[in-house]
This record gives sequence, structure tokens and C-alpha cells, in this order.
Amino acid sequence: MREHLIIIKVGGQIVEEPGSLSALLKDFSRIAGGKILVHGGGRSATALAEKLGIETKIVDGRRITDEETLKVATMVYAGLVNKTIVAGLQAHGNNAIGLTGADLDIIRAVKRPVGAIDYGFVGDVNWVNAQAISELIGMGAVPVVAPITHDGKGSLLNTNADTIASELAKTLCGKYELRLIFCFEKPGVLLDPTDDKSVIPEIDPVLFEELKEQGVISGGMIPKVESGFNALRQGVTAVVITNAQGISGGLRGTRLVL
Amino acid sequence: MREHLIIIKVGGQIVEEPGSLSALLKDFSRIAGGKILVHGGGRSATALAEKLGIETKIVDGRRITDEETLKVATMVYAGLVNKTIVAGLQAHGNNAIGLTGADLDIIRAVKRPVGAIDYGFVGDVNWVNAQAISELIGMGAVPVVAPITHDGKGSLLNTNADTIASELAKTLCGKYELRLIFCFEKPGVLLDPTDDKSVIPEIDPVLFEELKEQGVISGGMIPKVESGFNALRQGVTAVVITNAQGISGGLRGTRLVL
Repeated sequence: MREHLIIIKVGGQIVEEPGSLSALLKDFSRIAGGKILVHGGGRSATALAEKLGIETKIVDGRRITDEETLKVATMVYAGLVNKTIVAGLQAHGNNAIGLTGADLDIIRAVKRPVGAIDYGFVGDVNWVNAQAISELIGMGAVPVVAPITHDGKGSLLNTNADTIASELAKTLCGKYELRLIFCFEKPGVLLDPTDDKSVIPEIDPVLFEELKEQGVISGGMIPKVESGFNALRQGVTAVVITNAQGISGGLRGTRLVL
Repeated sequence: MREHLIIIKVGGQIVEEPGSLSALLKDFSRIAGGKILVHGGGRSATALAEKLGIETKIVDGRRITDEETLKVATMVYAGLVNKTIVAGLQAHGNNAIGLTGADLDIIRAVKRPVGAIDYGFVGDVNWVNAQAISELIGMGAVPVVAPITHDGKGSLLNTNADTIASELAKTLCGKYELRLIFCFEKPGVLLDPTDDKSVIPEIDPVLFEELKEQGVISGGMIPKVESGFNALRQGVTAVVITNAQGISGGLRGTRLVL
């Protein structure tokens, strides 16, 4: 039987508020067995960029990353957010290690080609180093992954945290019985955005298309669900969209199925 | 025979200028065998703090670290500077991994007690995790250590990079034949600060006292030399003070001896 591994992606808001961060660290630290935490941190990067007078441009939920914005993202994601989580998990007895894609060359990406939009220093993942990540997990380490990758030629690249989580899942499911959890502010995908009790328990690709047409699923949720389906197609055992409370106990929330 | 390990500490200025950083990465990446790079990054943190309107206070070469300053230090040291070096070394074929003391719990520190001066969130190293560092080196990894530690209770702490380098050296020399190199802007300790050819080839504790009295050694060089002597007393094989060029080829510069 293969070992279990759970990859949990947490969004910016959970990480940025001390109260929800502390709850997350507590819940996450109690998960037994192999685990990886992937975090975003978008809003604090935007806030810092603003203070520094750097204009933030977002197109289709993707930040346009010029050189100064990349520096800010690296400082906030790989520095402040990542190390705050690592120190917090250490205090909870989890042997956390903070990583970007450059560290141990765990995630390589290519700079997105300039098409209709020039995204700047944004990387699309093209290789995940399953060997290095497995070695760390084998040491008892808990990888905490920031949404920064590298191109192997010396450049860091800004990469969407949902994408990182699903790319890690897709590669590591060759080795582990793998569950992928996307945590955000809501308890799942809601039929009625104003009613937290309207969680849709299960979404398959057909329902997904319907929900998109109805406008129930929109914005950043679209690529999240798409990358979840992709992960399932590659052999990931379960993909769940939930809030931080959803990771303790059973896996409540919205389950993606093929 | 014990394996060799070289610990190289590089100062802020080397890291902050693209030209000298690129030269350092090239020279450092060519060193064969086990190696650790410890970096500072003081001036860019000061510059960022200024832009954000945070006042920087330095007493006896030590930054006074309030909560906002700690955030800036974490962003700059553990984020921007650390990951820039890691990505650069990866491009040179070195399997670098960026670490603070919190990552894998490699360096624990205690918040400096408030005496005549309240240093704020500054940590004095009290434990180095030789086991975890050796495992990484055994994996072929090249640790790149930022001057940020943690207290094991969830707080990050700002810690002098020279101190980190010598504390790593003192603990790891129990396991490795260890050389410790402090790199800064000058080719060594100079008898005449205006003449780069006046490098003092060797300094022992007696000469050190004389040079301090004459004012030849002052400021941040005093704790650097003191921690070097300390490292030698704990069993470190060689301690050398030099510039980045000094790490390629032989070990030119000023050698500390007991």
C-alpha cells in the first residue's frame, strides 16, 4: 500500500489574519502523516507594493509581474508569509521547511510567452522534482511551499499557488495516495454566494459547465476547479474545495469528481 | 578522515551589487565538496525600511529590531536576498536550499534579554541542529542561510550573520574538518585602511588586543574576530577574513590563529 500524502493549499486571506492563521496552523499541525502546505499571500503583496508606490495590475486573477513586483512577491511570499508559517508550525511540533521552486530545484517553470498579455515574470510549471520532495518527507519534514518558482537559469518567477498545489499533486500521486485540498474563505463552492449552507457537495465536469454558464462559478474559482479536474485525471485520489475548518476531521466541502 | 566542510559568510555589500553577487556565485559554485553560504543583507533592509517610513536604529553594529523592522528583515533577508542567491546557485549547478533558523529547526535562538539596550526581536543562538544540516549536505544540498532564527515558540528573530556563521562552524566542526571564511569588501584586515596591499596575514589574540588599542580593528570587525577566535577554540580548523575573490583558489586574506 502506498503512503498517504495530503497537499493543502491555503489562500491569502487565511494567512494574513492572525486569528485565522493561528487556527489553520493548529488544524494543519494535527494532520498525521505526510503533508505539504502551499500558500498564497496576494493581498499583503499588493499592500506592500502600494506602500512602495508600485502599481499592481491583475488580469484574469493573475498578477502582472514586472521586475519590482517580482521583488515584492519574493519578499512577501517567500520571506514574510512563508517564514511566519514555518516558525508557527515549528512551535506546533511540525518540522516545517519553507521552500520556493528554486530551493532544491523542486519546481521549475518557464516564463509565460508574451501573447495578447505580457504577464512579465510569471512562470508556468514545467517540472516537479518528486525525488527531492520525497526525500524531505522521508526525513519527517513538512514542506511549506511559497508561490515562487524558478527557471533554472537564475530567474525567480511568480506562479499561481493553486497551480503549484495541483502540479505538485499531479507529480507526487505517482508515488503517494494523494489528496489535494483547496482552502479558501468559504466552506465550499456555494450555490448561493450569500448562504454558507448552500455548499454544493459534489461537482463533476458536466455540472461545472452548467455552473459556469449560470455564473455560480466564476473568476479565480474557474482555474481552481479546472486544475482540480486535471489532478484527478492524473491519478490524484481526491480533490476537495473547502475552508480552513474543513481540513480538521473529515473532508467537508465540495468534492470534485470525474 | 573526516569530510571537509567550508562555511562562507558574505556581507551585505557583496550580495546587493549585481556585479559582485554574480562573481561570488561563480566563485562559490566552483568550490568542491560540502559547503554552506551564510549571508547578510543589511543595507537593502535599511533602504526598504526607509521607503516604508520605518526608522532604522543601529547600536554597536546591531540593528534594533522592533516588530515592523523584523518584518522588513524577514522579507529582505529570508525572501529577496536568500532566494536570489538560491536561484543564482541553481543556475550554476549547485543544489542550493535557502534556510532560516526556523526551517527544519536548524538554528534556535533566545530573544536577547533587555539590559541597558532593548534590542527588540534579536536572537542569540542557543542551539544548532547539526543532524538536520548534515542530512541536507548528505543529500548533496548546499544550504544558504539567512540571518533570521526562531525561538521555537513561533517567533522569528533577527540574528547577526557573523554569529550564525561561527555558531554553525562551532557545532559542525564536531562532525566535519571545518573551515570558516568571513568575506567582506576588503582583501583582509588592513593595517592601513586606505591601502588594500596592507593585509595583515595572521592575527592571534595578543596582536588582536594591540590592533584594537591602535584603532586598526574597530566597529563590526571586533565581534567578527572574537567569534572567529571562539570558533578556533571549539575545534574549527581555519578561520580566514578575506574578500569574495579570496574564496577562489587558495585562502588569501587574514588568517586567525590562537
